[in-house]
Amino acid sequence: MTKHLILLVALSSAAPSWGQEATKFDRSVMSAENFEARIPRPAQDKVAEEKLAALKEKTSKRPNILWLVVDDMGFGDPGCFGGGTLAGASTPNIDRLAAEGLRLTSCYSQQTCTPTRSAILTGRLPIRTGLTRPILAGDKITANPWADEVSLPKLLSDAGYFTLLTGKWHVGEAEGMRPHDVGFDEFYGYYPAQKEISQRVDVRRFPGLVLNPERLAAFEAVGPTDYLTHGFKGGETKELQQIQSTEDMSKADQVLTEFTVEQIKKLAAGDKPFFIEHCFMKVHCDNFAHPEYAGKSEAKYPYKDAVHEVDSHVGDILQTLADAGVLDNTLVFFTSDNGPQMDGWPDAGYTPFRGAKGTTWEGGVRIPGIAYWKGMIAPGRTSDGLFDLMDLFGVGLTLAGVSTDKLPAERYYDFVDQTSFLLAADGQSKREAVYFWWGKELMACRMKEYKVHVKVVMSQAPHMHIDLATVHDVGLAPWFFNLYLDPKEEMTVGHRLDPWMVTVLGKLKAHGATLKKYPPKDIGL
Amino acid sequence: MTKHLILLVALSSAAPSWGQEATKFDRSVMSAENFEARIPRPAQDKVAEEKLAALKEKTSKRPNILWLVVDDMGFGDPGCFGGGTLAGASTPNIDRLAAEGLRLTSCYSQQTCTPTRSAILTGRLPIRTGLTRPILAGDKITANPWADEVSLPKLLSDAGYFTLLTGKWHVGEAEGMRPHDVGFDEFYGYYPAQKEISQRVDVRRFPGLVLNPERLAAFEAVGPTDYLTHGFKGGETKELQQIQSTEDMSKADQVLTEFTVEQIKKLAAGDKPFFIEHCFMKVHCDNFAHPEYAGKSEAKYPYKDAVHEVDSHVGDILQTLADAGVLDNTLVFFTSDNGPQMDGWPDAGYTPFRGAKGTTWEGGVRIPGIAYWKGMIAPGRTSDGLFDLMDLFGVGLTLAGVSTDKLPAERYYDFVDQTSFLLAADGQSKREAVYFWWGKELMACRMKEYKVHVKVVMSQAPHMHIDLATVHDVGLAPWFFNLYLDPKEEMTVGHRLDPWMVTVLGKLKAHGATLKKYPPKDIGL
Repeated sequence: MTKHLILLVALSSAAPSWGQEATKFDRSVMSAENFEARIPRPAQDKVAEEKLAALKEKTSKRPNILWLVVDDMGFGDPGCFGGGTLAGASTPNIDRLAAEGLRLTSCYSQQTCTPTRSAILTGRLPIRTGLTRPILAGDKITANPWADEVSLPKLLSDAGYFTLLTGKWHVGEAEGMRPHDVGFDEFYGYYPAQKEISQRVDVRRFPGLVLNPERLAAFEAVGPTDYLTHGFKGGETKELQQIQSTEDMSKADQVLTEFTVEQIKKLAAGDKPFFIEHCFMKVHCDNFAHPEYAGKSEAKYPYKDAVHEVDSHVGDILQTLADAGVLDNTLVFFTSDNGPQMDGWPDAGYTPFRGAKGTTWEGGVRIPGIAYWKGMIAPGRTSDGLFDLMDLFGVGLTLAGVSTDKLPAERYYDFVDQTSFLLAADGQSKREAVYFWWGKELMACRMKEYKVHVKVVMSQAPHMHIDLATVHDVGLAPWFFNLYLDPKEEMTVGHRLDPWMVTVLGKLKAHGATLKKYPPKDIGL
Repeated sequence: MTKHLILLVALSSAAPSWGQEATKFDRSVMSAENFEARIPRPAQDKVAEEKLAALKEKTSKRPNILWLVVDDMGFGDPGCFGGGTLAGASTPNIDRLAAEGLRLTSCYSQQTCTPTRSAILTGRLPIRTGLTRPILAGDKITANPWADEVSLPKLLSDAGYFTLLTGKWHVGEAEGMRPHDVGFDEFYGYYPAQKEISQRVDVRRFPGLVLNPERLAAFEAVGPTDYLTHGFKGGETKELQQIQSTEDMSKADQVLTEFTVEQIKKLAAGDKPFFIEHCFMKVHCDNFAHPEYAGKSEAKYPYKDAVHEVDSHVGDILQTLADAGVLDNTLVFFTSDNGPQMDGWPDAGYTPFRGAKGTTWEGGVRIPGIAYWKGMIAPGRTSDGLFDLMDLFGVGLTLAGVSTDKLPAERYYDFVDQTSFLLAADGQSKREAVYFWWGKELMACRMKEYKVHVKVVMSQAPHMHIDLATVHDVGLAPWFFNLYLDPKEEMTVGHRLDPWMVTVLGKLKAHGATLKKYPPKDIGL
């Protein structure tokens, strides 16, 4: 980052007048030194508060929270985001959720799995927690990043919620790093991603491993846990069925959905409000079509059948909420953990944007986001307002009535509380900027429709954004795109056309500077 | 094309077994030697016939037809096709039309303006009529292509319809080639595209022309007509206001919409059914924001304001149909004449696909298509079925009850009558293939989700698909894409992965062979 900080300083001092413009362009205000600045919107905050108070009056219970997180689903995969039948897999249930809720078209994740999943649970960027890239088999982590993190499920559990994670975890499977160690009251799922599990049994894709007893033994010695695991707060952990075939793998999401469905039925009848993070195993490569869904998508490829299956499970879970009578007391948020992993092509997803998972192009970080809450979120809304998935942390605290005073004061928090953006009928985003990291590199920053890149990931083959990609510094000028004019980030508007490059670069720099006062955690990844 | 025909023969004879597969893969059947083969769907045809008969019983009038053709609007521009606010211009009226109608996600035009506009009026490909590229100032046409063409408006006018073209024509402005010469009872609009008109008065973009009296005089001697023109069947032609400033240009679509609105009011009260083709001047580059719409889009660029304005006019026209009580007796079809002209960037459109106007990539030829008919087309439908804008010719004949016996038998017709695809509740496309031409070159063919390219247009700069592009033969194997897996045409599935390449190539070859029996017309373009 150093080179660009120097470049920035040079540009800034050469154009002092931009400084004044910037105060108007950047509407955000800091509430405390260790919190990301937010755009003040007192009127809509009041509307949201009143709506929540009225609901509590009616239900005499704090609202439930349900996150539906698909693994590696591309922005363009759901029909309501431009794909569906066009991309070979119709998604009627997700489309209905969007039609009856708020469709977020500028919703951002991190560019890979572990970073996103840890960020939404901590409200903090991966660079701060140390979880800067996916944890893979054989990784040696030097410190437990969770040892001093305060997770949303922990805060909610302490505040009287029942907290459950169903499905994929992938944020550490050692003792102390498991979901039920870090705040969830219950965990029912798998630690790693589908491929990490299935490679041991997938003779078609991994003959050199599966057909070689010595290598298989070596792999099993370091490989990730491939058991369906049931864990409970306090540490009790049961290993249930092991994945022993690709067919077992194909059925995992059916099993997980059935578990969540049963839990919702029980919890809805109980006293406690609940927070459920349901993390699908699909549609992470490699996908194996569940026998009931094989060939059910238009394209009939396993990835597309998986999109169709996930859509069907979304429908089942929503129907369960409806049947249990808690639809109007539950915020549902549907999303993906990053862009599509195109390296699995031809069996992969679709994003209309440049790049894919593993890059900080829009294709890697812009993901479908739908907020649905019957009676609380106006149906049929679409917003281009900036939303970072970390903001779900802030929304969770507010819905549960947990004060930010509960958060340690000596660390930096990157979330923005977007409750009023979601709930007010014409709510606007309170986030002024989204920052894009790739591992330990600060790559880019978006403000409004502008995005500046100081480093870029370049793919050496059309669908190889992870496995055959390289990281480059930009040239003399940062790459600067107006995403309204150029959603695909093909042509920079550069330093000549648009006057805001230095301002957005300044925001990126100020963000980088927070790491000086609040140093990053290094866990050896 | 010769080289690839040879290649095809070689491939075909090397793999004779594909021939048998092809009979199953290709479901289309010829009804006559000079008509494009179509997929038989007798059950849905019957449903459509019954619906039309019931409507006629109710209204005792044949249905009206209204085409809304935007100039150069990209597939991704409307919100309902993935853009809208995301691309800096919300389109609530177009989105509503889609929500209450049938959204076609595989709807195809030709890759430029004149070819599309002539094809939809003749039901024949540009290679057959000679109108293979846009007619530009200074072009010397050696023969009037319309002399022996039988247009849809002529057939409908002869059959008792009142036929009107409002707006842009761009298919010839010499006597004998004007809208009111070739079949329209009335014409109210402009002959050329916006840029052809506005360059004479746009000192900012064309200082070398506007500020040089000699060159301006030379241009005016060959330049296109820049008067709003009112023409009538029989030849009477009045020149109304001349465009004398970019502000005049900015208001053209307002004037045109007001004309169509008034005509609908009159025609709805009359005895004759009507066929109106309303062709917007916008959003062809260069765009000048109408003062009332300037800055009204999210992006606030003239192109985006133009998208927003067009959307508003679509709303006005639909409201007029509703107020006149003819909404349930009028088929409305909304579309664009080709992909976005990206060479106008930064003030240009959005397609999620590869390429743009001027190419036979999906970005050049896949365009938004919405069929809306209150009470006749089920609301909320989306279909990925193939639809070529030429198919509107066939739908027009059927709605007006004009038999194909009226069409000259010695020429080839490329349209497919898709009335039942649109009207039956679960209607499927009757088109098995779409063929892509670039000038006089046969470039590509799509069947189902497969597209084969034998030639491709390559851009030498990210947004230069017309002005800095070259046409290439493909290498040893044709480029073959599965559009479900790869909507952006980035990675060929090649000859190894998918078994249908030879079949689709065979379809392309058979199409090329129709030109032998029915030779192309050459008008010197």
